[in-house]
Amino acid sequence: MAAQRKIPTPSDDEQRAGADLEDLVGYNLKRAYVIVSADFRRTLGMDGFGPRVFSALSLVVQYPNITQSELARMLGIERSGLVAIIDELEGRKLLKRIPVPRDRRVQALIPTDEGRAAYARARDAVRAHEAALLSDLTAEERETLLTLLRKIRQTED
Amino acid sequence: MAAQRKIPTPSDDEQRAGADLEDLVGYNLKRAYVIVSADFRRTLGMDGFGPRVFSALSLVVQYPNITQSELARMLGIERSGLVAIIDELEGRKLLKRIPVPRDRRVQALIPTDEGRAAYARARDAVRAHEAALLSDLTAEERETLLTLLRKIRQTED
Repeated sequence: MAAQRKIPTPSDDEQRAGADLEDLVGYNLKRAYVIVSADFRRTLGMDGFGPRVFSALSLVVQYPNITQSELARMLGIERSGLVAIIDELEGRKLLKRIPVPRDRRVQALIPTDEGRAAYARARDAVRAHEAALLSDLTAEERETLLTLLRKIRQTED
Repeated sequence: MAAQRKIPTPSDDEQRAGADLEDLVGYNLKRAYVIVSADFRRTLGMDGFGPRVFSALSLVVQYPNITQSELARMLGIERSGLVAIIDELEGRKLLKRIPVPRDRRVQALIPTDEGRAAYARARDAVRAHEAALLSDLTAEERETLLTLLRKIRQTED
């Protein structure tokens, strides 16, 4: 066990560094996401849905017949990173890979009935988890936050 | 190469799923962070500073004599995950591990002069990168975003 020590008081010069970090949008985004995703994992841990698996299933339910390339692009992740997620969802019989007519190299993804039902349950649980976790934010603050985060996302387009 | 296919139009039932995802704070936090951190990596890639290495160095500069346990807690990461980061910073001679009086099991971290200078350069580059990336946000929107993200971070305390 580490000894109990007080963190030393920073000098004036040094104080700027901590202020810098706290004033960076990227640092605050990361810290906030770590908290929300840890709570997400606690909520959906029983069902074995990590945030990425949940997001992938959500889009397959919304866009049946989506290809893996399209899904990777919509999720903003590498196609190679998606394969393990799709393998997992297929292994759990929550979606199926089906051939695409006219291009045998491409497979499309469709949710199973079980996948749709599992997604609906997970979605309700995630909504409840965010409502509880973010109860310090008013409805208006939550909307403002979403609007500003979407504005950052638009810089990518 | 994948065939060019239009993503199928979702049915009314299915449309809810995508709306659900877009309305989740966690999903939007992650997508926004991915964009900001990718830009961060492009900015500091030359110097070989990832976001976590940068954050760790920032706190060592601000709190010389901080222990690894204290640093892990302030960064909100596991102590085990921090060791590789500290090894890297020490290997690059940006910080030093020194013994803590009265507890030989604990080592404290202090920045080298080179570490302080490297941090100051990196900090200026990160500030410039965020200002450019987030130029669509007004100064007021940026402050509002930081305030709301900090509010989420407070739920952890």
